Amino acid sequence: MTIETLSQARAHGGTQGVYRHASTATGTPMTFAVFVPEHAPGARLPVLWYLSGLTCTHANVMDKGEYRAACARHGVILVAPDTSPRGDDVPDDEGYDFGKGAGFYVDATQEPWARHFQMRSYVEDELPALIGEHFPADMDRQGITGHSMGGHGALTIALRNPGRFRSVSAFAPIVAPGAVPWGEKALGGYLGDDRATWREYDAVALIEDGARLPGMLVDQGMADQFLVEQLRPHLLAEACEAAGIPAEIRLHEGYDHSYNFISTFMADHVAWHAERLKA
Amino acid sequence: MTIETLSQARAHGGTQGVYRHASTATGTPMTFAVFVPEHAPGARLPVLWYLSGLTCTHANVMDKGEYRAACARHGVILVAPDTSPRGDDVPDDEGYDFGKGAGFYVDATQEPWARHFQMRSYVEDELPALIGEHFPADMDRQGITGHSMGGHGALTIALRNPGRFRSVSAFAPIVAPGAVPWGEKALGGYLGDDRATWREYDAVALIEDGARLPGMLVDQGMADQFLVEQLRPHLLAEACEAAGIPAEIRLHEGYDHSYNFISTFMADHVAWHAERLKA
Repeated sequence: MTIETLSQARAHGGTQGVYRHASTATGTPMTFAVFVPEHAPGARLPVLWYLSGLTCTHANVMDKGEYRAACARHGVILVAPDTSPRGDDVPDDEGYDFGKGAGFYVDATQEPWARHFQMRSYVEDELPALIGEHFPADMDRQGITGHSMGGHGALTIALRNPGRFRSVSAFAPIVAPGAVPWGEKALGGYLGDDRATWREYDAVALIEDGARLPGMLVDQGMADQFLVEQLRPHLLAEACEAAGIPAEIRLHEGYDHSYNFISTFMADHVAWHAERLKA
Repeated sequence: MTIETLSQARAHGGTQGVYRHASTATGTPMTFAVFVPEHAPGARLPVLWYLSGLTCTHANVMDKGEYRAACARHGVILVAPDTSPRGDDVPDDEGYDFGKGAGFYVDATQEPWARHFQMRSYVEDELPALIGEHFPADMDRQGITGHSMGGHGALTIALRNPGRFRSVSAFAPIVAPGAVPWGEKALGGYLGDDRATWREYDAVALIEDGARLPGMLVDQGMADQFLVEQLRPHLLAEACEAAGIPAEIRLHEGYDHSYNFISTFMADHVAWHAERLKA
């Protein structure tokens, strides 16, 4: 597999790059961002995945996430994939919450989405292989986090792949897509009406069905405009409580859903992951 | 004077806001960003001005500058003005380096620019009065910094106003606009052909003409694509050396002209200013 370097710049002592490759999973070119901290020649560093939310590309967290200082300090690579396939051949929806920019980290089974919207396979299988091959990454030390739709992605990917991630966290995640409007539209559209097929893409349902994690860190702003209707963190708290999963769910007065919130707590998350990735 | 709040969000414990007002200096609405750290009721905090570079608005540093964590830590307000008047009535140039997004912090005397391009008066006089009135700012403790064209702005405003700023720094500044293509186009366009009128908008010329500062911090990337033709930091180093101005000019291997560079050294600058503003 080959990758094309779109840009590289020195930042916080390391290299912030943007890369593109022809994805087998999505059948499209895919763009992603990687920050590699300064490191000794030959060293392999732990990897933190950051999955972005609705409407985002790889660039939003790269521009606004304020992760580089913390990743440099802790010696952690950060990988930020795109949120959907892109291109003129890729079908789209007029809403911001379905289609391009809204892949929901699922493998679609319904037409016209199934051809390209294979973001589960892309993020779970294809891109990790590429990262392990092209970057100084220690793939035995991976953590995963994400925001909103990407928090949903982080939690569900970790729950479906026990043992792969040493650390899991999320910013304002969609915790129960099967029970909220964003998720009902997306999972119904990509997977069809049989709600049984949705459960492997629903963190709360996965936990109810027996999936486990050794722990998680979740931050949520209390002034988040999507808190009540779309995010509903109490559903995750209740599922973790019932399953005996130690979940640190922190509620923050006054914070909204934006990168003002994410960037405020990013250094905390990177440190939390680093502690587990370097243990 | 009244201001309109366009947005406010909690970030790093403080408030990142974007505001608009009707400017007397430019005869247009002007937008600016202010970050106010968490503070005790009634407290007044020192102020750091950040002047942006070519093509930027208030938003570039707000999104990519990574200043909020440091400003919150040190209790410093950061103000980011726009770089020119905006609007359909404002004349423009087809180049990115003149007209809208390229006010160069001068009061234009030439037509058709003189009517609106009064960015010196705006940043030097009008906006400071507004900040002192509407924000918990201690205007006796001001510092100033900026990037590229904004570094030029920071240095020249500080040199023309001895005693107003307790601390002055710059990222990759244009230090001698009268001697480089960007500056020759802008100063010639806004001020006309008489180069004597350019000298009050040229940091090196101001120093040669007797202006002094108690010190300055300048960071410059050595992989900056504009280093040799437009920035020429050695001219500033030589002028400071001749004038006995203690200038800390740091050259950084591998860094370019972008916010990857700025954000890397932003926390250093905020700390450097805070030390002087809180002394």
